[in-house]
Amino acid sequence: MYFDNAATTIKKPQELKDKYMEIFENSNYGNQSRGGHNKSVNAMMAVYETKKALSKLFNTKPEDIAFADNCSFASNFVIKSLVNENDHVITSTTEHNSILRPLYQSKAELSFVDFNENLELEYDKLESLVKENTRFLVINHASNLLANVNDLNRLHDFSKKHNLIMITDIAQTAGNTPIDVSKYDNSIFLFTGHKSLYGPTGTGGIIKNGDFDFKPVFSGGSGIKSFLKTHPAEFPTVFEIGTSNFMSQIAFKGSIDFILNTGVENINKKIKELTKRFYDGIKDNENIKIYSKEPKGDYSSIVSINIEDVPSSDVSNILDEEFDIQTRPGAHCAPLIHKHFKTEEQGIVRFSFSYSNEISEIDEAVSILNELTKKA
Amino acid sequence: MYFDNAATTIKKPQELKDKYMEIFENSNYGNQSRGGHNKSVNAMMAVYETKKALSKLFNTKPEDIAFADNCSFASNFVIKSLVNENDHVITSTTEHNSILRPLYQSKAELSFVDFNENLELEYDKLESLVKENTRFLVINHASNLLANVNDLNRLHDFSKKHNLIMITDIAQTAGNTPIDVSKYDNSIFLFTGHKSLYGPTGTGGIIKNGDFDFKPVFSGGSGIKSFLKTHPAEFPTVFEIGTSNFMSQIAFKGSIDFILNTGVENINKKIKELTKRFYDGIKDNENIKIYSKEPKGDYSSIVSINIEDVPSSDVSNILDEEFDIQTRPGAHCAPLIHKHFKTEEQGIVRFSFSYSNEISEIDEAVSILNELTKKA
Repeated sequence: MYFDNAATTIKKPQELKDKYMEIFENSNYGNQSRGGHNKSVNAMMAVYETKKALSKLFNTKPEDIAFADNCSFASNFVIKSLVNENDHVITSTTEHNSILRPLYQSKAELSFVDFNENLELEYDKLESLVKENTRFLVINHASNLLANVNDLNRLHDFSKKHNLIMITDIAQTAGNTPIDVSKYDNSIFLFTGHKSLYGPTGTGGIIKNGDFDFKPVFSGGSGIKSFLKTHPAEFPTVFEIGTSNFMSQIAFKGSIDFILNTGVENINKKIKELTKRFYDGIKDNENIKIYSKEPKGDYSSIVSINIEDVPSSDVSNILDEEFDIQTRPGAHCAPLIHKHFKTEEQGIVRFSFSYSNEISEIDEAVSILNELTKKA
Repeated sequence: MYFDNAATTIKKPQELKDKYMEIFENSNYGNQSRGGHNKSVNAMMAVYETKKALSKLFNTKPEDIAFADNCSFASNFVIKSLVNENDHVITSTTEHNSILRPLYQSKAELSFVDFNENLELEYDKLESLVKENTRFLVINHASNLLANVNDLNRLHDFSKKHNLIMITDIAQTAGNTPIDVSKYDNSIFLFTGHKSLYGPTGTGGIIKNGDFDFKPVFSGGSGIKSFLKTHPAEFPTVFEIGTSNFMSQIAFKGSIDFILNTGVENINKKIKELTKRFYDGIKDNENIKIYSKEPKGDYSSIVSINIEDVPSSDVSNILDEEFDIQTRPGAHCAPLIHKHFKTEEQGIVRFSFSYSNEISEIDEAVSILNELTKKA
């Protein structure tokens, strides 16, 4: 039973496989370029079709999407392109290292908002963090451990009031939680393809709402303006360097079509059912400590636990080796959450569910956990 | 007839398709991590198997290979990691923008070696370019227009004499020309998967021979040392940020197996035959100007031409639309070659061949070109 979907989904839609087969069988996609031969144009158009599908999913425009290898690349590109040493950035203790480390690296001044005992952001404290040089609000849509889903409307109202650029990591919510990018002007969303978008690795990127003064970060072949010494600053070329992963980007459309056909609302409903059933199944077990949000209102498909003071990697190993249950132990690249809980040493065992999991799997895992902790 | 293989090969080996099918059918590869559940370990081991196959091909060690999205990313990572503002770099006018632009961006002092009328590097002039602060020799193995293949032994002897780090772009030769990395200490090779390695897009990387003081360029999730504020500096983690494109990397082994089974020497022999036959077929045509090396000794699978003063994009369009022949016109991201030839406006039409092309295709293209230029 695979419950490590927050790391990567492992069961991909048939539509994705079909797209890959088409790419290989037909040999019809050349290297994209601005107006080359028909096989180049095929690739360019097919990549555009994927951006069109994504723009339908997120209610945005294809030209506001740049592809990147994964969410970390998207984050590095955007932060290195926009955030300067003299800026002040408000972020949160729930961020992933893919956000935290580029922010540290930028040498900007950082202020952190923490989360409360209900595992919700301390929205009330945001106002007190604003300084004269505050330029960015960098807070994820959902952490990769807490099962919280942050209130984008509230965060955006705050950003707008203080004229900040809102940068939002949607790695954990894209595809399984409705997101309407058009509602959030002056904002940038960072996504990855291989998690809840059920796509291939090597896909992901940047969705912008607004005009930003992007500086090139990496530089290389651009297909346009080849005689310029600097990489073109036009979006999306500014971030799409060299031959992009166009095969996976083309195939990725199969995944987005699957989501659009299934309906994000339906996906959201199912993952919430699975998550709540798991949570409810273990919440009264005194030997299990739960670190993730009670499944009420909005929440993501994660339940984070420890069994007494057993190292999380031991628990994960036993579950994997004895019961064929895959979970993720350790730090999950979220160091400040572990500092909050004082679980730096023990780590946390994360269960994360996807649309392809079934209620019967949840029930089996719950009974295994309850049985296991009885023995402990 | 597809003759744009220097941009990307379009016919991929069956072994690559089979690997993709295995990935999707079995759902057996999770997100790699250092010692996670069995599906993580599967992915980690399978990616290692690809590095092992590559290390056999290039006579190096798997642990000396870091994966990157493409050659431009490999180049940006290495140059931004190592080259400083106060360094002097010797490079060539035959470099691609994926090398030139990161070098310009580094603000290092640059000296350029040009090429002679035989389209060979002016090796003799290298010595005169050395300065006290010269630290790098950054010259490709083969340009993407000239069909030259540079003498790595000679370049390495020069590098060694002056204690330089040799950085070599092998985007055009990896897989179709033998390269023995073990012979070149203190050197770094940059490769891409989707060209002559017959691999998928989204693959490529860095092969090092020696120890280098790599600084992190991008930063993010690393799976190790999650409580460090900076991205770990260990190779390859220093350049492998976030969830890598492990699916394509695993599938990529199919391509390398195909090359190892076929033999690089056999591939080299065939592409040379195709190239020579094409060159010989048009060399006496007075209306065709050839910009690439005469096929003698070592050469790559490229023939670059113009038809009188017709814009290269017009020629390419006619070939594509009327004869279903795919070539690449324009600047090919190699601005200094066009400055050398004064073809900035006209561009150049590039024919580039792969192992999957056939002699019959070459003969047909030659007769079409000769017929076409008769009318002109």
